[in-house]
Amino acid sequence: MTQDERVDGRHPEDADEMPWAEVTPDAARRLLVAAVEAFAARGYHATTTRDIASRAGMSPAALYIHYKTKEELLLRISRIGHEKALRILRRAADAEGTPTERLAEAVRSFVRWHAGHHTTARVVQYELDSLGDEHRPEIVALRRESDAAVREIIEDGVAKGEFQVPDVPGTTVAILSLCIDVARWFNTQGRRTPDEVGVFYADLVLRMVGAAPRA
Amino acid sequence: MTQDERVDGRHPEDADEMPWAEVTPDAARRLLVAAVEAFAARGYHATTTRDIASRAGMSPAALYIHYKTKEELLLRISRIGHEKALRILRRAADAEGTPTERLAEAVRSFVRWHAGHHTTARVVQYELDSLGDEHRPEIVALRRESDAAVREIIEDGVAKGEFQVPDVPGTTVAILSLCIDVARWFNTQGRRTPDEVGVFYADLVLRMVGAAPRA
Repeated sequence: MTQDERVDGRHPEDADEMPWAEVTPDAARRLLVAAVEAFAARGYHATTTRDIASRAGMSPAALYIHYKTKEELLLRISRIGHEKALRILRRAADAEGTPTERLAEAVRSFVRWHAGHHTTARVVQYELDSLGDEHRPEIVALRRESDAAVREIIEDGVAKGEFQVPDVPGTTVAILSLCIDVARWFNTQGRRTPDEVGVFYADLVLRMVGAAPRA
Repeated sequence: MTQDERVDGRHPEDADEMPWAEVTPDAARRLLVAAVEAFAARGYHATTTRDIASRAGMSPAALYIHYKTKEELLLRISRIGHEKALRILRRAADAEGTPTERLAEAVRSFVRWHAGHHTTARVVQYELDSLGDEHRPEIVALRRESDAAVREIIEDGVAKGEFQVPDVPGTTVAILSLCIDVARWFNTQGRRTPDEVGVFYADLVLRMVGAAPRA
């Protein structure tokens, strides 16, 4: 378990989502965690399957039982990360409450994930080009669904007169971009926790969409 | 000259700043451009000096005449990129005009650079951890100065009553972060030019600081 996975463990609502819990058996999960660390530290292309096996305390032969190629590891990491991001945004979009409340919750939980899991998030968000043409479309489709969840909340807010947004698709890209970049700069030694960055960013985003000030 | 360098050539105000013009002789500049492309494509750690020399159509021996190590190339790229970013932000901070006008200009020109030079900007912004302890402090100092230029404009806007900002340092980080992430998602095939993204982002940022709507 890496430093940033532990941080997230503090959030009770994520307790049922232990990082990589969906990856079994245990050896496959250990290899995945080792791959995330290696990709984040030196980049996908500079990492060998031997490096990954060695970080996981296993032999290269043991790795091949679980993953045929290095790209299969990246695809697995990318798919799980993007599915998690989509679940977070979809849950906020489908929640009860006003568009203002739902947008704030989407930003809070999306930012909390990118700050709390910044090592994983960097691999998920920055190594997309390392996926081959065969696998990239699957991930691009998940990204489009995430985008659609946020756009839906904004469109609803505009329709209800809560938001003033001249360009909904452009604003959607900007909001997701602001949240994603938290993974680049977030520092566990910094003055804010992942929760606090999420709350602060929710306020900034409500300003971006021209939400009426809350009482 | 890479695709993204050419895009920027369209802006007359940058005509005096041909990319890497400060790097001479020509062979040293060609190697630098090759290094940017290689680092962006496969990451710093997966790139060898042999790859870089070969991209530049030169021999490894010819490379060593200009750069002793791969890290020296990265340091040179990072220093020039960060000095350019600082010049852009400093020029906006020191300009005539209201805080609203100066913040809009800072965002427009900073975003235009990150979109127009997205390949370079990715290396400059994402490979910071690849610099050794000996060289990183110099770059961190340049980043602090960039941060200070933006913070200065926001503080001035708050003092003059133009901006409503509860947390100036946090908002400064968020604004720079929003602009920097343009380098990750910007696509020359997209619906907006670097100029247009800059104009759109300036409006979003003025909303973030609670600037009074302009007439």
